[in-house]
Amino acid sequence: MKLAQPRSFRLDRQLSLGYDYRMAEPESGFSFEISATCGGGRAGVLSTPHGAVRTPAFIPVGTQGTVKAVTPEELRDVGTEIILVNAYHLYLRPGHEVVRRLGGLHKMMNWEGPILTDSGGFQIHSLSALRKINDGGVEFRSHIDGSLHFLTPEKSIGIQETLGADVIMCFDDCPSYPASEERMAEGVERTLAWAGRCRRAHGTPHQALFGIIQGGEYRSLRERCVSALVDMDFPGYAIGGLSLGESKEITHEVLEETTPLLPENKPRYLMGMGVPEDFLDGVTRGVDLFDCVFPTRAARNAMLFTSRGRIHAKKADFTESDQPPDPECDCYTCRNYSSGYLRHLFIAKEILASRLATIHNLRFFLRLVEQIRESIVEGKLESFRGSFLEKYRGESYDQETSPGRA
Amino acid sequence: MKLAQPRSFRLDRQLSLGYDYRMAEPESGFSFEISATCGGGRAGVLSTPHGAVRTPAFIPVGTQGTVKAVTPEELRDVGTEIILVNAYHLYLRPGHEVVRRLGGLHKMMNWEGPILTDSGGFQIHSLSALRKINDGGVEFRSHIDGSLHFLTPEKSIGIQETLGADVIMCFDDCPSYPASEERMAEGVERTLAWAGRCRRAHGTPHQALFGIIQGGEYRSLRERCVSALVDMDFPGYAIGGLSLGESKEITHEVLEETTPLLPENKPRYLMGMGVPEDFLDGVTRGVDLFDCVFPTRAARNAMLFTSRGRIHAKKADFTESDQPPDPECDCYTCRNYSSGYLRHLFIAKEILASRLATIHNLRFFLRLVEQIRESIVEGKLESFRGSFLEKYRGESYDQETSPGRA
Repeated sequence: MKLAQPRSFRLDRQLSLGYDYRMAEPESGFSFEISATCGGGRAGVLSTPHGAVRTPAFIPVGTQGTVKAVTPEELRDVGTEIILVNAYHLYLRPGHEVVRRLGGLHKMMNWEGPILTDSGGFQIHSLSALRKINDGGVEFRSHIDGSLHFLTPEKSIGIQETLGADVIMCFDDCPSYPASEERMAEGVERTLAWAGRCRRAHGTPHQALFGIIQGGEYRSLRERCVSALVDMDFPGYAIGGLSLGESKEITHEVLEETTPLLPENKPRYLMGMGVPEDFLDGVTRGVDLFDCVFPTRAARNAMLFTSRGRIHAKKADFTESDQPPDPECDCYTCRNYSSGYLRHLFIAKEILASRLATIHNLRFFLRLVEQIRESIVEGKLESFRGSFLEKYRGESYDQETSPGRA
Repeated sequence: MKLAQPRSFRLDRQLSLGYDYRMAEPESGFSFEISATCGGGRAGVLSTPHGAVRTPAFIPVGTQGTVKAVTPEELRDVGTEIILVNAYHLYLRPGHEVVRRLGGLHKMMNWEGPILTDSGGFQIHSLSALRKINDGGVEFRSHIDGSLHFLTPEKSIGIQETLGADVIMCFDDCPSYPASEERMAEGVERTLAWAGRCRRAHGTPHQALFGIIQGGEYRSLRERCVSALVDMDFPGYAIGGLSLGESKEITHEVLEETTPLLPENKPRYLMGMGVPEDFLDGVTRGVDLFDCVFPTRAARNAMLFTSRGRIHAKKADFTESDQPPDPECDCYTCRNYSSGYLRHLFIAKEILASRLATIHNLRFFLRLVEQIRESIVEGKLESFRGSFLEKYRGESYDQETSPGRA
């Protein structure tokens, strides 16, 4: 099926970064421009009504309307250009209408930069109980208080429009891994039907609605999903259904089969993947946007990412260390505090431990994507990848595993 | 008994604020100067090797080597000039020798301003199990792991010297309230004997050792304690044994009987008292320094101090409020966030809730002492007290109670 051009979006590679959308693009404010490529890697800029996002970009996750443990100023300081918030969580608590009365997401959170909201499709599958799914929508019980809810594509779009993010997502059917081919085929058809309904329900030109690709490891199903979504001409495409427990080989295979089918001039967003290897694996396969709760969640559990691999901040080895967690890091934590103090804060269960570790991990991830972007611009993506991984894996304490969508 | 002038301290009202102690006071770096009085209230400056503290001052409490939930930069932003850390806690964890290897308290915590350490006398009484006290010292079990320890006046001074604070406290015997006159008499004699031992053990001229007054509500015991400590000529005096559950009337009576006995030119520190009424009650009775865990602890429990009394941030009334917690407050929280968002953060158990509330409460307390100081300088302490309390009590949700020493 080929739908008409959406009335409100025109993504245009010719739009420059400094472009004032309100004059020439009164109805949207979005553009995506690729400024350099290197192999499969792309360096670009996604412009939104709340500012520009240089890609490849990592999107810190603020599940309940706050990136856990940090302020908006600290997010800026570590290099954050866009954050993700979960429509599912805010719908349940405090309620999207409450967010609207508090001035919308940006004002409520005191974050003036771009925001992306996830639709709730994935969260209903991963968090809620008593889920009943049919072509109309999903009935589920709140993971907070057990209350009964029915979410439809139209309602998800309505919630996301009320929240007011810059980028909003289609409501998708995301089967658990592993899913049978039959269940996945059903999921793809439902995701496509719902994408059409989301698109028709979507009435806010200042919010870009991205499509979400499902299909799991079934190549033909995924191709069917990509093809139909591309026909609907969304301003951006997310690759969903990965990082649910499948092997890295499957992840890579799916990415390699999927990104070549997507339009070159639209941003590609890989949902829920975010260890350093994932960024490198994704970027070299043509991905532009990544989000993951892992860096912030790991931080609160005393796991720090460093240029020489992951470390556990509570290890006795650090008791008397007056060195920063990562001497090569430029973050607030590494500039001002020792590993010994950080260990003490974690052992003593002090809030400052979570704060300092979160700042460090976010900076590590955002600096990594900055370095990846730079290596693309300089035409050195492969050599950067090699030298980064050599150092990073050399002293890593354990094997990386992917932690899943927020 | 009249001891010789301590070799290292000379507190001199003539020393000016901008005075470089290293040239003229090579051995100490301390001075206390009173610049204005109003009734019983005193406005002054306590100079230390790590900077000046304008008095009356509120000292935020960083029990385990961090003021819970905030960074040193945030402490500065809210107007903090000196912080308190507990020697007892750091002795047990991570160990004072570890703190020394991490560069001492100031470097470890990244706090370049003045620090005061409490001696551990009070904490052993309030926190530890299996306490055996005799004239030699105190045997106790750690509240963390049950390990057995024996602390003496000499050991407490050694620990505090190793930690490296600017102001350190004598190791005192602080009986629980209510204590019999017999037990209190024993406590006073022991506190005095230990004060002498602390003074003799004290070998670091850059750390000012304050005496602690005990005696509870027994006037003659307290007079005995004050008189003997004043004879020992400490550079500052703390009033201990209050805020342990006694009535406000007793607190006021004790203060009124005690401060007139203390030398005018030495700072007076009221330990562990810190609701707004306490500051006003203390300042009008001649107190210069206050510390209390209450503002920060209350903040983490969603209790905010405002110009119109205390509020509970989780109250349903605030659900849709787009107003700041205190429209008259100039803190980061009130400038940037709504009561509705803060309520959401508390209900959702987000770390940011504790952060924002702590910043607000600290700023409220520090601004209050700034205003008190200003009113002393302007000769309007009583009228400030009246107008502050009228507004503060008008809409207060509950009766103030004092929360005790840290």
